[in-house]
Amino acid sequence: MDGIGIVGAGVAGLHLGLLLRRHEVPVTIYSDRTAEQLSGGRLPNTVAHHHVTVERERRLGVDHWDIGEYGYFGHHHYIGGPSPLRFPGFFAAPSRALDYRIYLPRLLEDFLSRGGGFEVRPVQPADVVTLSERHDLVVIASGRGSMGTVFPRRADRSPYDTPQRRLCAGLYEGVAPTDPKGVTMSISPGHGELLEIPMYSFAGHVTALLFEAVPGGDLEELADADHDEDPAAFHKLVLGKVEQHHPTVFERIEPGRFRLTSPQDLLQGSVVPTEREDYIRLPNGRYTVAVGDVHTVVDPVVGQGANCASYSAWELGQTILADQNFDERFCRKVARRRQDRVQSTSDWTNLMIRTPPPQHLLELLGAMSEHQAVADEFTDNFSYPERQWDVLATPERTRNHLARHGIGG
Amino acid sequence: MDGIGIVGAGVAGLHLGLLLRRHEVPVTIYSDRTAEQLSGGRLPNTVAHHHVTVERERRLGVDHWDIGEYGYFGHHHYIGGPSPLRFPGFFAAPSRALDYRIYLPRLLEDFLSRGGGFEVRPVQPADVVTLSERHDLVVIASGRGSMGTVFPRRADRSPYDTPQRRLCAGLYEGVAPTDPKGVTMSISPGHGELLEIPMYSFAGHVTALLFEAVPGGDLEELADADHDEDPAAFHKLVLGKVEQHHPTVFERIEPGRFRLTSPQDLLQGSVVPTEREDYIRLPNGRYTVAVGDVHTVVDPVVGQGANCASYSAWELGQTILADQNFDERFCRKVARRRQDRVQSTSDWTNLMIRTPPPQHLLELLGAMSEHQAVADEFTDNFSYPERQWDVLATPERTRNHLARHGIGG
Repeated sequence: MDGIGIVGAGVAGLHLGLLLRRHEVPVTIYSDRTAEQLSGGRLPNTVAHHHVTVERERRLGVDHWDIGEYGYFGHHHYIGGPSPLRFPGFFAAPSRALDYRIYLPRLLEDFLSRGGGFEVRPVQPADVVTLSERHDLVVIASGRGSMGTVFPRRADRSPYDTPQRRLCAGLYEGVAPTDPKGVTMSISPGHGELLEIPMYSFAGHVTALLFEAVPGGDLEELADADHDEDPAAFHKLVLGKVEQHHPTVFERIEPGRFRLTSPQDLLQGSVVPTEREDYIRLPNGRYTVAVGDVHTVVDPVVGQGANCASYSAWELGQTILADQNFDERFCRKVARRRQDRVQSTSDWTNLMIRTPPPQHLLELLGAMSEHQAVADEFTDNFSYPERQWDVLATPERTRNHLARHGIGG
Repeated sequence: MDGIGIVGAGVAGLHLGLLLRRHEVPVTIYSDRTAEQLSGGRLPNTVAHHHVTVERERRLGVDHWDIGEYGYFGHHHYIGGPSPLRFPGFFAAPSRALDYRIYLPRLLEDFLSRGGGFEVRPVQPADVVTLSERHDLVVIASGRGSMGTVFPRRADRSPYDTPQRRLCAGLYEGVAPTDPKGVTMSISPGHGELLEIPMYSFAGHVTALLFEAVPGGDLEELADADHDEDPAAFHKLVLGKVEQHHPTVFERIEPGRFRLTSPQDLLQGSVVPTEREDYIRLPNGRYTVAVGDVHTVVDPVVGQGANCASYSAWELGQTILADQNFDERFCRKVARRRQDRVQSTSDWTNLMIRTPPPQHLLELLGAMSEHQAVADEFTDNFSYPERQWDVLATPERTRNHLARHGIGG
């Protein structure tokens, strides 16, 4: 038996592999992509790592990007409507957004240099049993292809059957950063959100624009617009939508310079938020554990997917280090250990994309616009989704939260 | 609304109340017994507090009994049969056994002097709704009377429908303590266990003998023997059973001095091991949480009930201090937080009273008799039932545990 097998070389697979290698556990990562393929191709996402994830990177020895240069300090909110609201919120420590085509290959290099095994080969659901007989434990850390079918969907935890947002994510030049450097979260009621993220990519410090378009709303056409067919028309369309719906971003755009940093730096699509079982028992009696998107996929609207995958990988890794009996008791420990943060991530994200938005979320946003401490707490809770859910799980919780801040009642 | 209401003045209710008072939370304990009644009457149990519980007492400021005088250091094992085994196991830190008729009233005094409220009145299941409207949260910390009916029994977690042991617990004089001072765990295969516990009671340092009689075995008559009808015959019967089944205890008995310290210092009965739901939603929409015996009652064979109740109360208290929204999310946090230790306590205890004993338990006991480190780990795990269950949950786990100690394979 050969230690731990990890299917997937995304943030979950690599963080888990790096953690285990720090403790000399034999690990093999299986990926359907070579290191070169990880660094090329289309923009894979527009991920930001919040400070708990950055701290995890420090502990894994992969904190290669100086937070002073690559970090940002909070969120600039804009909520449109008849009386627009505009206010910032600050983290307790900076977040950092890196192009995963730079980030993942660098972490893979670290993993290899620390004795990790890496095999490039596609793994299908039918291959999991065979892998399980080669390793003490197989972890599925890839939601790509059909791997999701390995773990049953949890209908009780998956409230949506269709995407609640259609997505258009791209890296752009011609957008001046905010001061202080931060993400802009701009909401166009009824139409969707724009996340503007200061990101480091091949072109240097660029701007990610992630449009979260409500199906049927005025922004939806961004998810279908074809850049390559007519780049100028695409940029004009995007610019027009930003001008109309997201004025605090538009005011920093230099229209003549506004364009994608590359035709490949565009990703359009959508996500059906889905939770799946934590683990399954294979036909041979062994168990396999899900981590990351294959376990819980969330809409990117509050930038939690990668952070949650890293967290989940870390907790799984700690459980592996503490108990090397990979039976159902082990799997239940993993599930219990990560449950609150992972489910809170999912619950909170699903609340944020509900249409119409729940009244108590609007009340919280309103209070944030008037009370810096409330805005800062909401913002820092991007590192602690279970605390966010403590505030937002019910209208009573939001009311009690505001009362603790001396608001309302 | 008046803070937290706790029904029950046992170890769970008092430890919870004391923890909350240290943080200035208003608390009222409801008890069907006055402080005087708590200190009188029949022997309530023969409880030992293991070092994690002693540490909790330190943190609660109720560590009134110097561990040097009142503590003991480990377990002296005797396993009868054709080739008897005899070996000790040592704790990392001492345990302590105090008569609860001394312990609970003293803690109640501490609780009152720290501003806790105390109301003597019987609380019936029908009263819980009314109490729930008087307090922010009502905790049921009493398994007495019909309170168990408030929380549904969990059939999936309650493997037995009848007692697996019949009990005869008493405080005795005429038994010399072991050296070093410890509990003797003596097993008479097919007939049951004798726990001999150095306990502090009204008569000073005395000896508790807790007979755990397998129904139908030779020791069962102890559970029915009537002391008060003929004390001499009772003592003769007990002495004879100890001589026949538990020789390492018998060798320290001075027959002429052997007797109960008082006719009241005897408790006979039995327990049906039962797990109940962590919480329920009351008809008025409020929630109430179970802690201690009303949540999980275990056979006393490995002395875990009170320790588990204290642990559960502590974790509940920490959750209360962290989140004062007493809704279902709160209740689930409590359940998740305490689940591993509480369920492991139950699973491990239920394994210990299985007839016949599982083979892997016998293998572990055999290894303990030959390897001090294995015996010490088992013994110290009386403070960490989840670690004990890590070792005993399956035959594979026991085998892997022994392999880590270089045994077998």
